[in-house]
Amino acid sequence: VIETGTYPTAAGLGEFGLIDAIIRRLGDAATAPAVLLGPGDDAAVIAPRGPVAVSIDQLVEGRHFRRDWSSAADVGVKAVGRSLADVVAMGCRPLAIVAGLALPADLPAAWVTEMAGGMADECRRAGAAVVGGDVTRAAVVALAVTALGDAGDTAPVTRGGARPGDRVVLVGRLGWAAAGWAALAAGAPTIDGALAPVVTAHRRPAVTYDAGPALARLGATAMVDVSDGLLADLGHVAEASGVAIDLQRAALPVAPEVAAAAAALDTDPLPWLLAGGDDHGLVATLPPDALAGVADLAGVVIGTVAAGAAVTVDGDRVPGPPGWRHF
Amino acid sequence: VIETGTYPTAAGLGEFGLIDAIIRRLGDAATAPAVLLGPGDDAAVIAPRGPVAVSIDQLVEGRHFRRDWSSAADVGVKAVGRSLADVVAMGCRPLAIVAGLALPADLPAAWVTEMAGGMADECRRAGAAVVGGDVTRAAVVALAVTALGDAGDTAPVTRGGARPGDRVVLVGRLGWAAAGWAALAAGAPTIDGALAPVVTAHRRPAVTYDAGPALARLGATAMVDVSDGLLADLGHVAEASGVAIDLQRAALPVAPEVAAAAAALDTDPLPWLLAGGDDHGLVATLPPDALAGVADLAGVVIGTVAAGAAVTVDGDRVPGPPGWRHF
Repeated sequence: VIETGTYPTAAGLGEFGLIDAIIRRLGDAATAPAVLLGPGDDAAVIAPRGPVAVSIDQLVEGRHFRRDWSSAADVGVKAVGRSLADVVAMGCRPLAIVAGLALPADLPAAWVTEMAGGMADECRRAGAAVVGGDVTRAAVVALAVTALGDAGDTAPVTRGGARPGDRVVLVGRLGWAAAGWAALAAGAPTIDGALAPVVTAHRRPAVTYDAGPALARLGATAMVDVSDGLLADLGHVAEASGVAIDLQRAALPVAPEVAAAAAALDTDPLPWLLAGGDDHGLVATLPPDALAGVADLAGVVIGTVAAGAAVTVDGDRVPGPPGWRHF
Repeated sequence: VIETGTYPTAAGLGEFGLIDAIIRRLGDAATAPAVLLGPGDDAAVIAPRGPVAVSIDQLVEGRHFRRDWSSAADVGVKAVGRSLADVVAMGCRPLAIVAGLALPADLPAAWVTEMAGGMADECRRAGAAVVGGDVTRAAVVALAVTALGDAGDTAPVTRGGARPGDRVVLVGRLGWAAAGWAALAAGAPTIDGALAPVVTAHRRPAVTYDAGPALARLGATAMVDVSDGLLADLGHVAEASGVAIDLQRAALPVAPEVAAAAAALDTDPLPWLLAGGDDHGLVATLPPDALAGVADLAGVVIGTVAAGAAVTVDGDRVPGPPGWRHF
């Protein structure tokens, strides 16, 4: 492909040119102490201290993001954040990612390198490295990010260990990204003032990477990140653990930014809190005697675990959509 | 989505129904001795013996496969084989895969479960496990498979260690898949007799999983799997190692099946041998005193390493396309 314009496309750079440009843009984000071999060979090689958590997540244009709503760097941040949140929710430390990039031929090459820059920034923030990838052509941008986490000497925290008597603790944001999505979907003419913080949250989740391992050390019995919505994700915990979970409505944190967005959009923020994903806050269950350290993580107790099944709010089943479904 | 037909679609089963059906189809392929936690939680957890090799590869409908040329199970086999070949080419043992599945809403659910069955079969053959995945909607089938390999106590074999005096050894098939693709692309009216073996090879690579670790133990100084074509992939070795590589035309194995396909299609098989990818044979460089064990792997010596740069055949540069480029 011969490129004559000022702004080369992905196809114009070609597979190897694009890969070179991406690796240059990653810079030191391709390295970390545990990385024995970074990008450029058949595979990368890493040396974890303990067992390895692994999870793959996809971000597809038009379904998980829009190029007119999010910058390329935003998309890179989000793709990495949502994948790393899954290994953090096991109590593991972020270690590395590899990314499969399916890209339209006419996508500006600069979009790709800026997206890679967002991936690099988020990996640095998490203490992880971008160690490999693959590029191929597709009709829309589709990113598949596999995250690896290091369990170290801490036993992984599954969804299945919650016990009656445990408390439910939330660390991180709740309802922010859903509020931001609502603002964008409503076509709010200007994104500023009351709406800017939540729209930014929709574009770039503020994943609390340190909190996962910290909750595991405190003795979390179960943990998930909120990706499908609080009710849906706690439903997974209740089912896997064979317990009932009751949330206290009054304990659910409504951040001033979320309240302001609800006022600006003249709506009730509760559905954002209960069914909004994409903030990737962590929800863990802990025995009451393990709660002392939760405040240091800016965690709040939002509910209790009891014998039984299902998730309730102030004792009642909540009707309506349980969260985002991908099909 | 309400499904009324006899044959449910991916969207008809819904995200969680589809995931359940896939996990049921995987059966014991979701487990292995090193797997501490399989599919179903935020992340899987595995316990390798040594450092971990990781690589991601994508297979996109219309670009890497056609649903009218390959069965669903074929596609699953190929997606896993090409990814695991990358960790095997580092000298690592296959450990696990995770798969991102982007699927059209109207894709038959049975196509998805049969594809997962192909993934399961190939993982069993490799001694690996399918430990996780993600499903989302897209216009065409796009699969992203991340492979993990275990280096054990063997140092990973990169592309960069070939030394003058080494010999180039090939283990596995050469030119088979390219011949099969040529047969399908030529619209051969019947795929039988002379063409059936190579068409099957195009659909299902016969990756030699044990050969990667075995070549590493023999003392391979560099190794790649042939995915872009022999000349292109050895070009990567020559560049990374700072050496010249000369192949002997007469030493390149032309399997009877490849020769028969060339005769049936009335063409010269040499381009298939030099530029065909998709068989994922392993090419390694070894010092002459390490060649004794190569015959046990059904390996053949196809060239030599010298001081210099570039890849030649019988001393000559070969013009023409260096292999499959993805952009």
